[in-house]
Amino acid sequence: MQLTKAVITLAGKNQRTLPLQSLVDRDGVPKTALAIIIGEAVSAGVEEIALVVAPGDQEVFRAAAGAHSGRLRFIEQEAPLGYGHAVWCAREFTAGRPFLLLVGDHLYVSRSGSGCARQLVEVARDVESSVSAVQATHESKLPFYGAVGGRLVANRPGCYAVTEVLEKPTPTEAEQRVVVPGLRAGHYLCFFGMHVLTPTVMELLEESVRQRGSSGGIHLSSALSRLAQREQYLAFEAEGRRYDIGARYGLLTAQLALALDGSDRDEVLSGLVELLAQRSR
Amino acid sequence: MQLTKAVITLAGKNQRTLPLQSLVDRDGVPKTALAIIIGEAVSAGVEEIALVVAPGDQEVFRAAAGAHSGRLRFIEQEAPLGYGHAVWCAREFTAGRPFLLLVGDHLYVSRSGSGCARQLVEVARDVESSVSAVQATHESKLPFYGAVGGRLVANRPGCYAVTEVLEKPTPTEAEQRVVVPGLRAGHYLCFFGMHVLTPTVMELLEESVRQRGSSGGIHLSSALSRLAQREQYLAFEAEGRRYDIGARYGLLTAQLALALDGSDRDEVLSGLVELLAQRSR
Repeated sequence: MQLTKAVITLAGKNQRTLPLQSLVDRDGVPKTALAIIIGEAVSAGVEEIALVVAPGDQEVFRAAAGAHSGRLRFIEQEAPLGYGHAVWCAREFTAGRPFLLLVGDHLYVSRSGSGCARQLVEVARDVESSVSAVQATHESKLPFYGAVGGRLVANRPGCYAVTEVLEKPTPTEAEQRVVVPGLRAGHYLCFFGMHVLTPTVMELLEESVRQRGSSGGIHLSSALSRLAQREQYLAFEAEGRRYDIGARYGLLTAQLALALDGSDRDEVLSGLVELLAQRSR
Repeated sequence: MQLTKAVITLAGKNQRTLPLQSLVDRDGVPKTALAIIIGEAVSAGVEEIALVVAPGDQEVFRAAAGAHSGRLRFIEQEAPLGYGHAVWCAREFTAGRPFLLLVGDHLYVSRSGSGCARQLVEVARDVESSVSAVQATHESKLPFYGAVGGRLVANRPGCYAVTEVLEKPTPTEAEQRVVVPGLRAGHYLCFFGMHVLTPTVMELLEESVRQRGSSGGIHLSSALSRLAQREQYLAFEAEGRRYDIGARYGLLTAQLALALDGSDRDEVLSGLVELLAQRSR
């Protein structure tokens, strides 16, 4: 499987200002969240990147993209018909080829030498199928994520063959349908905001769009659920963590995680101690 | 002295995206930096607020202002001729009355029951003159701030009669001209980003604009230096701290300071501990 294209969705209603937020990356360079996400895709070996945006947002995102603007293509999602619809808007761009899919409101801190997207792309190249990155997530966070059920793949650590996909399941639904043997109690494999998807997913989304039309609610999870019935589809626990910058204190947590893992660790830690000391004075 | 108007400058070249950054305020409410700054002015009793912006920025700042949009007036600074010039652009708005001046790239955490701007306004009402808020600042940070020299005012704790104003002095200049008796060694009274100014300041700025015209470099500090020769001008150490969100990790530090001082203190502290624990695993 050759992967040269990535799609980043930025059209979600509450997500339009998040990619514009200023952060300092692991190397100590001030950047927008969008520039960091684009860097994640580029470091995975991607050559062209489509940004799916709400109408009118192109200029502000172009300004926030930083370097790599030569690799970008903008696609407007004309109406907010769901995350699956936003992905489907990129069907001409992906043109029947597999692609890396990223969201605009998550940042990643890898624990291995290579970035999370790169780890994912390497797995997808090996297994020649769709692969979603997942993270073992406590059930208290199920309302925020899609979750997958499946079983470990032999001889491929951290990889699961997906049998079920549920969008934001209740704890009861999760317990009945997406328990994964071997995880800590009360934990589920939840989406990481990062997928490599085959063209079959675009076909499945096309079916949803034809059925639901402009009534919206076109979810990626439902297409992925059908994907699991149709062809091999894996989940992969990347070595790293996702940070949802749209959560309350999500930017704070992501910035701290980047800094504590990066070149400015000592400076940031001592600033933290200073701040705590000031407070107790 | 009656104070009903505030001016907030947002036109600085590197400061145009800072007021749009998302933070969570001390009460746990997600807000832009701009909305927090406007709230600081409003809680000081101000009724009308002029935002001095670069041409074309009005709409994006209006969207970021949150509540209080009815109190706002936008003034364009047509060309980037200096901070003093930006203030001077609001001369018709202030209309010969004293005004509160705030910058768009600083946030404040007060240590007393009332906000820093409110403390400042109360002092200005009492003394009936211009007052700049200042903070004892280590000499290593002199390159970032204006500094004042002066002597303590009897019976008015934290208040100094200003004799000298220097913009970003070198350590040698500072040692010769703005040493203030009673501060810790190596510390100077540096601007806090918050002033109450009398109409005389607008007259002094007008002189600078006439002299320098479109050659720019019209500094507020130089007008304040002349103000100190002309009429009573005080500096006031507010009970609180300023956080420059334009500094590297400035947003991180400001967000932590707000959170550690606010209603979400325990939640944020435990998130911090969790993050540090993950790192050491």
